[in-house]
Amino acid sequence: MTVRVAIAGPRGKMGKEAVHTVMKATDMELVAVLDHREIAMNLTAYSEFPENYDVAVYTDLEALIKDTKPDVFVDLTTPKAVYTHTKTLLEHHVRPVIGTTGFTDEQLQEVTDLAKANGTGAIIAPNFAIGAVLMMKFAAEAAKYMPDVEIIELHHDQKLDAPSGTGVKTAQLIAQNRPAHKQGHPEEHETIQGSRGGDIEGMRIHSVRLQGLVAHQEVLFGGEGQMLTIRHDSYNRASFMSGVKLCIEKVVDLNELVYGLENLL
Amino acid sequence: MTVRVAIAGPRGKMGKEAVHTVMKATDMELVAVLDHREIAMNLTAYSEFPENYDVAVYTDLEALIKDTKPDVFVDLTTPKAVYTHTKTLLEHHVRPVIGTTGFTDEQLQEVTDLAKANGTGAIIAPNFAIGAVLMMKFAAEAAKYMPDVEIIELHHDQKLDAPSGTGVKTAQLIAQNRPAHKQGHPEEHETIQGSRGGDIEGMRIHSVRLQGLVAHQEVLFGGEGQMLTIRHDSYNRASFMSGVKLCIEKVVDLNELVYGLENLL
Amino acid sequence: MTVRVAIAGPRGKMGKEAVHTVMKATDMELVAVLDHREIAMNLTAYSEFPENYDVAVYTDLEALIKDTKPDVFVDLTTPKAVYTHTKTLLEHHVRPVIGTTGFTDEQLQEVTDLAKANGTGAIIAPNFAIGAVLMMKFAAEAAKYMPDVEIIELHHDQKLDAPSGTGVKTAQLIAQNRPAHKQGHPEEHETIQGSRGGDIEGMRIHSVRLQGLVAHQEVLFGGEGQMLTIRHDSYNRASFMSGVKLCIEKVVDLNELVYGLENLL
Amino acid sequence: MTVRVAIAGPRGKMGKEAVHTVMKATDMELVAVLDHREIAMNLTAYSEFPENYDVAVYTDLEALIKDTKPDVFVDLTTPKAVYTHTKTLLEHHVRPVIGTTGFTDEQLQEVTDLAKANGTGAIIAPNFAIGAVLMMKFAAEAAKYMPDVEIIELHHDQKLDAPSGTGVKTAQLIAQNRPAHKQGHPEEHETIQGSRGGDIEGMRIHSVRLQGLVAHQEVLFGGEGQMLTIRHDSYNRASFMSGVKLCIEKVVDLNELVYGLENLL
Repeated sequence: MTVRVAIAGPRGKMGKEAVHTVMKATDMELVAVLDHREIAMNLTAYSEFPENYDVAVYTDLEALIKDTKPDVFVDLTTPKAVYTHTKTLLEHHVRPVIGTTGFTDEQLQEVTDLAKANGTGAIIAPNFAIGAVLMMKFAAEAAKYMPDVEIIELHHDQKLDAPSGTGVKTAQLIAQNRPAHKQGHPEEHETIQGSRGGDIEGMRIHSVRLQGLVAHQEVLFGGEGQMLTIRHDSYNRASFMSGVKLCIEKVVDLNELVYGLENLL
Repeated sequence: MTVRVAIAGPRGKMGKEAVHTVMKATDMELVAVLDHREIAMNLTAYSEFPENYDVAVYTDLEALIKDTKPDVFVDLTTPKAVYTHTKTLLEHHVRPVIGTTGFTDEQLQEVTDLAKANGTGAIIAPNFAIGAVLMMKFAAEAAKYMPDVEIIELHHDQKLDAPSGTGVKTAQLIAQNRPAHKQGHPEEHETIQGSRGGDIEGMRIHSVRLQGLVAHQEVLFGGEGQMLTIRHDSYNRASFMSGVKLCIEKVVDLNELVYGLENLL
Repeated sequence: MTVRVAIAGPRGKMGKEAVHTVMKATDMELVAVLDHREIAMNLTAYSEFPENYDVAVYTDLEALIKDTKPDVFVDLTTPKAVYTHTKTLLEHHVRPVIGTTGFTDEQLQEVTDLAKANGTGAIIAPNFAIGAVLMMKFAAEAAKYMPDVEIIELHHDQKLDAPSGTGVKTAQLIAQNRPAHKQGHPEEHETIQGSRGGDIEGMRIHSVRLQGLVAHQEVLFGGEGQMLTIRHDSYNRASFMSGVKLCIEKVVDLNELVYGLENLL
Repeated sequence: MTVRVAIAGPRGKMGKEAVHTVMKATDMELVAVLDHREIAMNLTAYSEFPENYDVAVYTDLEALIKDTKPDVFVDLTTPKAVYTHTKTLLEHHVRPVIGTTGFTDEQLQEVTDLAKANGTGAIIAPNFAIGAVLMMKFAAEAAKYMPDVEIIELHHDQKLDAPSGTGVKTAQLIAQNRPAHKQGHPEEHETIQGSRGGDIEGMRIHSVRLQGLVAHQEVLFGGEGQMLTIRHDSYNRASFMSGVKLCIEKVVDLNELVYGLENLL
């Protein structure tokens, strides 16, 4: 079966990659894109895409749904519109694959309820890089048997905040699987402040920022006479696309909302 | 509840570590050791152990069982005796924790059947390093989503065979979870023979041998724009002891034979 | 002093990056580019560049030199023209910075002699990534004290040949600093052919090819109870540009030809 | 030529390894050991050593020198006696190889002057692991070309202080070769305090402490589109012995005091 896909934001960085990904997939058809600004009626007229990308462009979601009847709608944009989009999609039984993290708890609950009531599959994923999601999943699992953990996350030096969202998320998942405990020697002391890193429920997290790096993370587990290391390297935006593709394939068989790629693996 | 433990081969490298491990554990009692040669009646008289290790020594397994009634018997030796020991233990409802890989398929089937018939727990584990077992388990799991894999295993330069047993085992576990396929460019060629490594069902495996190393392995998964790496470092023999301890704890609750630590995790 | 720079092949991948690099440098001025095909008289008319890149375009090297009097000419293209270019440049006392590896020994000798005779600086560099050149330099140095070495090089799976040029070059540099000797156990044997890697003067080299990777290399030195690892990761083409910039700065002060960035560090 | 060697503290952890190292070396002879406590007249009587270690034991340094005429005296102990020993040795033209870091600047100056005046070679080395010394040397060199650096040092969780001495030393050596500058984004902020590590002249240093680890350090250099990593792993005490051996060989040809193994490489 060929899955009929529509995509929001074809001119954005992520949306553009998603368009290429679906166009290249043999078991998917890109039936429409949604652009918030009127550029042209068809992707063939967009300078960003090859001339053979014959795909209808809409600025109105309901019209898009009515005309092109997509099975799945991919929205990797982060505008306020995503929440409204998601509700519209679910009401029309179109399955949303959403990449934002911006929903409030109430909004998340509302769309979860709506998906369930309508029996419509939906996926909301803060991180589409399959390797990163596997890293988090394995780290949480390993902590049951090797509870002494430290996290090192490494990013380019234009990143403003430390530690990274993925780093904190990893620590939280680990914390659910081990009793909180202070690691290191009880009497350890820093001669240079901060050298032992940040503390998340007894785990230390270290943020490296260097020119040239992209997005990398190592989770280190120490045990008697041994160490287990789980590392993810993200080299570019393409790392998200295999996850997007997986979600398109999986959401078709869902009849409720799944939050987080880890719950599909 | 304190688990009553007996150990074979207290003068061997692994047996000696196991003696120390059980003596230090608060929820275990070392009730006896089995030595194939008559050295002394008690560990206190052994030069290998401190004088306060007050533990009875036997050269006959049946006598040991009758006198000291162990719950669990740990045998990390690799003599031919292990097979006979295992049968004797199961017949007397003493749970064996066995570290050998030397059983034939027939012998393995026989002790599996015997354990089941007697409702007696038993564990046979080729590798007790929890970190190594987790690495293999995670690698097999990751291959479902990131099927392009290479393995690098690194050992000291006194190791005779390449690749390592753990390396081959890892590749076999991965092979069960992905369709066999040749990786790399279809037209790739080696200008220096062997540089692309050994081939196990399309996966490449590379064996590094260097002075100073102990036992290390990396499993590398490549994906679009990303890489996932799972690495285990074994620094010394102590890495096996947390696995031995886990087995002693788990075997008490089993009523059949489990092969491989991965099936306990 | 502002260095006057000209660049060959502004529409090629490397040439384009070089144009951006020189345009951004505060102590350099891009006075001209050489294009082998006539596109426009000025870069402002090229779709590849912003409209404010006001740089003259030539198709004839001698005219370019006569009109714009560059101090340095950067040629990162790999056409047959490079050899002829280099001679023309040296005859006119314009310093070439060349990125090709395609010169024969005779050609290399000829341009070396010509640079010397004319007292004109010149740099030919097979690899402009400073980190990679440092890795090779350090590896050669380390081998004097830790002569047991293995090399692991990792590239994307579209690479045709194994091992990589940098891998072989590294091994050759190391070989000059240590007595050739077979590493590993004298009686080691492969149960899977190729697992011990390729052999370069007793050193083992391992080539990993995986989707998603870019260009990476590790040099591992084993010693009694220790290991030294030198690793370079190249994430994208920009990694070459700091080396190109360094060469432009250094070539101005040279009065002969230098081969290899390592001889400038 | 066979070098005549004497060693202090044969019952200490380091001294014991040194005794084995010299006994195994074909071009060295162990002529005496110095024990601060009277145990026996000869190592053959020590329970720590094999019965064929026929080496005279002294408790008085001057008597040792007079009787056994060593070329080199190795002192890896850290007692207050080392300073006095060093002076005595230099006065008798015996070359000291010293492993302590406990000298004051005045004491260091005094023995430096004394060595020079007497024309007697001497080596004081805070770190004998050749790999670690090479790591520091290469890191300092690399910083000239890739000035953005972070350091990660990893040790067992029984270590009391953070960061490690080697980590701080590495940062200081790097600082000599680059202009001090704050790295990372000028407006970066920590949401969890300490996550960006400790600050040494603008460089960030991160200390990992985990059960099972021994002594490891990574120095990471970021550049445009690339990263250079220099890593040292110390797995056990033997890692120091190749450095001790090198010092014994080198000190014979010196006629003044050299501080730090890096100045011999």
